[in-house]
Amino acid sequence: MALAHPSRVLLLSSRSGGPQMSKGLRRSRAVPSRSQMSSMSARNASVTCLPTATVDVDLGERSYPIYIGSGLLDSGKLLRQHIPGVTALVVTNDTIAPHYLDRVVAALSGDGDIRVEVVVLPDGEQHKTMEVLMHVFDKALETKLDRQTTFVALGGGVIGDMTGYAAASYQRGVHFIQIPTTVMAMVDSSVGGKTGVNHPAGKNMIGAFYQPKCVLIDIDTLRTLPDREYASGMAEVVKYGLIRDAEFFEWQEANVGALMAREETAVVHAIKRSCVNKAEVVALDEKVR
Amino acid sequence: MALAHPSRVLLLSSRSGGPQMSKGLRRSRAVPSRSQMSSMSARNASVTCLPTATVDVDLGERSYPIYIGSGLLDSGKLLRQHIPGVTALVVTNDTIAPHYLDRVVAALSGDGDIRVEVVVLPDGEQHKTMEVLMHVFDKALETKLDRQTTFVALGGGVIGDMTGYAAASYQRGVHFIQIPTTVMAMVDSSVGGKTGVNHPAGKNMIGAFYQPKCVLIDIDTLRTLPDREYASGMAEVVKYGLIRDAEFFEWQEANVGALMAREETAVVHAIKRSCVNKAEVVALDEKVR
Repeated sequence: MALAHPSRVLLLSSRSGGPQMSKGLRRSRAVPSRSQMSSMSARNASVTCLPTATVDVDLGERSYPIYIGSGLLDSGKLLRQHIPGVTALVVTNDTIAPHYLDRVVAALSGDGDIRVEVVVLPDGEQHKTMEVLMHVFDKALETKLDRQTTFVALGGGVIGDMTGYAAASYQRGVHFIQIPTTVMAMVDSSVGGKTGVNHPAGKNMIGAFYQPKCVLIDIDTLRTLPDREYASGMAEVVKYGLIRDAEFFEWQEANVGALMAREETAVVHAIKRSCVNKAEVVALDEKVR
Repeated sequence: MALAHPSRVLLLSSRSGGPQMSKGLRRSRAVPSRSQMSSMSARNASVTCLPTATVDVDLGERSYPIYIGSGLLDSGKLLRQHIPGVTALVVTNDTIAPHYLDRVVAALSGDGDIRVEVVVLPDGEQHKTMEVLMHVFDKALETKLDRQTTFVALGGGVIGDMTGYAAASYQRGVHFIQIPTTVMAMVDSSVGGKTGVNHPAGKNMIGAFYQPKCVLIDIDTLRTLPDREYASGMAEVVKYGLIRDAEFFEWQEANVGALMAREETAVVHAIKRSCVNKAEVVALDEKVR
């Protein structure tokens, strides 16, 4: 049951894998039509959006929820219940900031009861270094953030890893929230607590295991995700089906079209099942240790 | 019972506190006479020295022993039982290295079954920076140390803090052993798991809570400790008596002379009682959290 039959691998390959898959994705629009996204538009910061799905990552005292849905970036209430202090530092990059930063800052601030600081890092894996990470500490100290502060990662895997490690290290550990904006970060980086930066001699050589207080996945952010990155994230989703969830794999086969078209219901389900699978693996790993 | 009577504070002050204390210390020799140190000399790496005292720091799964005694630097067996892998990285500074590095490397290596690498950092609080810490990661990667390696801190508080944070961060956490060579590091830094580096805007602003596998305290290393540093360490010892251990405080009053003369039995007892006191405070703190 845990492993998909090899013939299914071939079946998927012939329908949506390899070159054909990327070809199909290139045809799909990065920004879906208004009708497709109607449920995601026309909202403001005062609206309370509820998650369509929640995955609980069970790690004893370090357990946390992953909220998945549309329009969640504006759900200040949802975010603020995980902020114990009166300050937050949003860490993002210069690609994501123009699209979503203002909304996240507004949601976190509430009626001004939380002071929100921002640091914008350059986008790209080549900037995942200790040198760039120091800008986060600089900003946190410059704005006098204390031990009760919360670091909020708004971006893909690089931003998530760097912000997590900064949160693990700032004053020996502050609170941490993840808002992933790529499929890969949603299904992979949001579970497992792996954080860190690269060293010239190797990737992720310096880091920490550090769990967030919550992960907020707003699938609307995928609207601005380039096809190529969407495809590589979906390849990760397919992997969970292949490796350990035959039922999920069957569902993927039946919903390839909807996934490629980035249809909300399908995307939420795919991300939820992937997170559930990874959470199970991580929880097992912890027990074995 | 937990608090010493104020009159006792004055009593100690009049005998060995303030200017008189430092004056007394200046008179004492940094290097004790041969007769005083007879039990500590004339040994070689094959000798197995047993600790005079052991303090168990009770932190559940992260519990560890503090070995205290004379000649322990040569106790390869004692050290090696806490090294699960086949490599170790000794981190020390250029003041300590000429005195003790060779002995520690010999003890760790055993019959060559453990590959021991070394990195020597510049001595001084001004070098407790992320920039200098990067040399530890550089060395670890250059010599291809894996996740099973053990980082060994040989030095005072700065070396202990930096090595601990490097161990917490290298490949998201490797094993860690502390060999403190100052009274302050022996009684303060060896318990509590506080590690880290400074930031221009504040001390210890970047770091982690990270527990060692063991702490090895060889009081012979105090032979090379300058009077001033010995005195400031002893002030910390007096604090434990004052704040929470009246019996210990009484013992200190009766043994001021022996402590000032760095007599082995007295020094071992003072360090042991201080570690026990700090371990109790830390264990209580953890329970409250």
